[in-house]
Amino acid sequence: MAQPAAVPVGAAVTAVRQASLREHNLALVLRQIATADRPPSRADLATATGLTRATVSALVDDLITGRLLTEVAPAPRSGAGRPAVGLTLADHGPAGLGLEINVDYLAAVLVDLTGTVRHRAVRRVDLRPVPPAEALSLVGELISEAGAEADRQDLTLAGTALAVPGLVTATGLVRLAPNLGWRDVDVPALLGAHPILGGRGLGVDNEANLAALGELHAAPPGSANFVYISGEVGIGAGIVLHGTLFRGARGWSGEIGHVPVHPEGRPCRCGGRGCLEQYAGQEAILAAAGLTDPPSARAPSTGRPARRHGPNGPLRVDGDRADDGSAARGIPVPGAAIARLAEAAARDDPAACRALVDAATALGVAVAGVINLLDVDTVVLGGVYAPLARWLAPTVRAEIGRRVLTAAWSPVTVRAALLGGDAAALGAAGSVVRTVLEQPARWLGRTAR
Amino acid sequence: MAQPAAVPVGAAVTAVRQASLREHNLALVLRQIATADRPPSRADLATATGLTRATVSALVDDLITGRLLTEVAPAPRSGAGRPAVGLTLADHGPAGLGLEINVDYLAAVLVDLTGTVRHRAVRRVDLRPVPPAEALSLVGELISEAGAEADRQDLTLAGTALAVPGLVTATGLVRLAPNLGWRDVDVPALLGAHPILGGRGLGVDNEANLAALGELHAAPPGSANFVYISGEVGIGAGIVLHGTLFRGARGWSGEIGHVPVHPEGRPCRCGGRGCLEQYAGQEAILAAAGLTDPPSARAPSTGRPARRHGPNGPLRVDGDRADDGSAARGIPVPGAAIARLAEAAARDDPAACRALVDAATALGVAVAGVINLLDVDTVVLGGVYAPLARWLAPTVRAEIGRRVLTAAWSPVTVRAALLGGDAAALGAAGSVVRTVLEQPARWLGRTAR
Repeated sequence: MAQPAAVPVGAAVTAVRQASLREHNLALVLRQIATADRPPSRADLATATGLTRATVSALVDDLITGRLLTEVAPAPRSGAGRPAVGLTLADHGPAGLGLEINVDYLAAVLVDLTGTVRHRAVRRVDLRPVPPAEALSLVGELISEAGAEADRQDLTLAGTALAVPGLVTATGLVRLAPNLGWRDVDVPALLGAHPILGGRGLGVDNEANLAALGELHAAPPGSANFVYISGEVGIGAGIVLHGTLFRGARGWSGEIGHVPVHPEGRPCRCGGRGCLEQYAGQEAILAAAGLTDPPSARAPSTGRPARRHGPNGPLRVDGDRADDGSAARGIPVPGAAIARLAEAAARDDPAACRALVDAATALGVAVAGVINLLDVDTVVLGGVYAPLARWLAPTVRAEIGRRVLTAAWSPVTVRAALLGGDAAALGAAGSVVRTVLEQPARWLGRTAR
Repeated sequence: MAQPAAVPVGAAVTAVRQASLREHNLALVLRQIATADRPPSRADLATATGLTRATVSALVDDLITGRLLTEVAPAPRSGAGRPAVGLTLADHGPAGLGLEINVDYLAAVLVDLTGTVRHRAVRRVDLRPVPPAEALSLVGELISEAGAEADRQDLTLAGTALAVPGLVTATGLVRLAPNLGWRDVDVPALLGAHPILGGRGLGVDNEANLAALGELHAAPPGSANFVYISGEVGIGAGIVLHGTLFRGARGWSGEIGHVPVHPEGRPCRCGGRGCLEQYAGQEAILAAAGLTDPPSARAPSTGRPARRHGPNGPLRVDGDRADDGSAARGIPVPGAAIARLAEAAARDDPAACRALVDAATALGVAVAGVINLLDVDTVVLGGVYAPLARWLAPTVRAEIGRRVLTAAWSPVTVRAALLGGDAAALGAAGSVVRTVLEQPARWLGRTAR
């Protein structure tokens, strides 16, 4: 409560203030460039920020030296005078490494400052029989590959974040990942010493949370309130409210897979009964459709390529991994069994259609509860739900219409995720990149050492 | 994004700044006094705030003139010098009027700046057959009574807030209150012109939200994450996270009464099926216990008084209304049928016990879903659940233990609400009082005119 009316301004205080002013202004200039419609000049930046031309030039020079910015050819200009050199985010500086460990795959993506995916790898492997330390050593292999790829492409790893389908503490301890069978796995202790990470540590977070962040930044501005449902072997939810990830009291929100939909129904791995996962999880759907896939047969690395369109142009659906490091827009193939399910549904196979309607009904019941409780207006179907959304969404919408108190006058949008199966890895990499953009002084301080 | 490096300081800007500095300092001084362990002197305030003694004295004089503060006899002091006059919040200045309209009762409370309840009235009436305008004219009668009581006790109405069991927009329009049968009722238009309100308007909010705020401020510090379940004819939830009410994207969060607990179960007034209300609402419990109470017999005004203890001393359970205006600690009697249910449960009546276990099971299923989604660590049983908590809580805890993923290592507290049946009215009145304490300059400006 004690709050002095004036702060004495001594030399030390002034020095601190100048350092923090420089940090603020570096971030301000970088933000201007990141959000500009066309590469602004130094003069444009001075006008937009209210800083002097000399201050802007000094800041820009520091950001170029630190490989955060790059100069581009001037845009043609109709007015008088020589056109000025434009500035854009560098594509040869810091990059974020995003990793995901899930029940039946591992993924890694490397994203540069401009948001371009520079490397992408997916390994299909059933991790349920694999002990945590071994699973993490497979992740370590992906890290080594990504590190080599970063070197080859003249990128520097700015940080690494790992998505896990479970409950993660602030220190990166995985308290529980029921479908992996993990309990109290200290991921930073097991993986943080990897040489590529260079002692810079490793962020660990829940996969649905990171996928929701990926979706938030991939979606058009204004997509500020939604629940992202990550359908995999388990089902998680990432809740975004007013443009911010909602984490709950201890960071363990979003466990929609264990919301009861038939209170005395099927037993669940969590110890409960009638959990959503038992009716709408990937394995429940496949079993109901008669497509249960032995783990060894899942998603061969020769997965049939296909094309579809994403928000920023065509997305390529890849097999085991992107065919080269610059294959920036590939998304991993859904498990082969999920692809077979979609094919069966497309030809109106009765078992496939019934399995999808039943799963969507259970999903709709749980989602209606979420909307009644949280008042979000958009439901994003992610993970394996994304390629199945065409068949799932109508039933989910119908359950919402029946069960949500506000549905009559306040329609709820149900749509497929924009990102593919590696949304969580993309969200993880994006969170590293955004930290650099928001705190460029920290990056500059690191590279100066 | 445009952010000038310096703001030009002209005469007009200086005047604005001085006004806002005074506003800030008035609030600062008032907050010091409101949170102090003993009445501070002007000198104590100068030390605590860093303001000069002269500035503090001028601010305190304004706050005394505006009837926000009062001087009290000095506390005896062991040190040298004459003891100074202490300052406390005034008990004869502004007061907040909190109102609640629910399905089977109306409530009004008048709370002064010190948080003391100065007047309390409860009317038992079944409002389901009553059109909204008539129901609001009954509320108008409570407002008139409270206004007369404020005059008699030398209090000034600082504002009024009304709790409604439904979905309320930011402008006070009740979009839907299913159990009242209300749709698009413009409460401010129907009630805002009441002469006692003096054109100062009327805040309207969801009853579970206001009850949760009441509970937040009645509970010991540190009770920052909880879901307050308001069990009435309908069931609502107020979600408090990190000490703040969570309202959702449009202010319509917390509709736990319509979370499905048996997806193809009993039809609900909302149009859905298997909603929690149909299994754990007041009427469902009473019907299951064989105690369904015809509306005319509900809670006679001669309700048998009883005593119990609250956080600040004994709470008196009153009948129709507090017997005099100074009866600050009374809480309304639960519906007579709920009291009979509690008596039956206390003597192990099998139907009563089974009804309570069944209701608590349904409640536990819905609450487990809430905790899996929102990650709160405390469940507060409010409304008619408070006097039944002894029988409900064990089963709710058992369902949480079975169904919540984090329950094994992160125990969830399930407890009765501290406030009684008029928690929402208390929360409403408290919200008015807190606004005065946080923005005293607005109050002073009003009284000066």
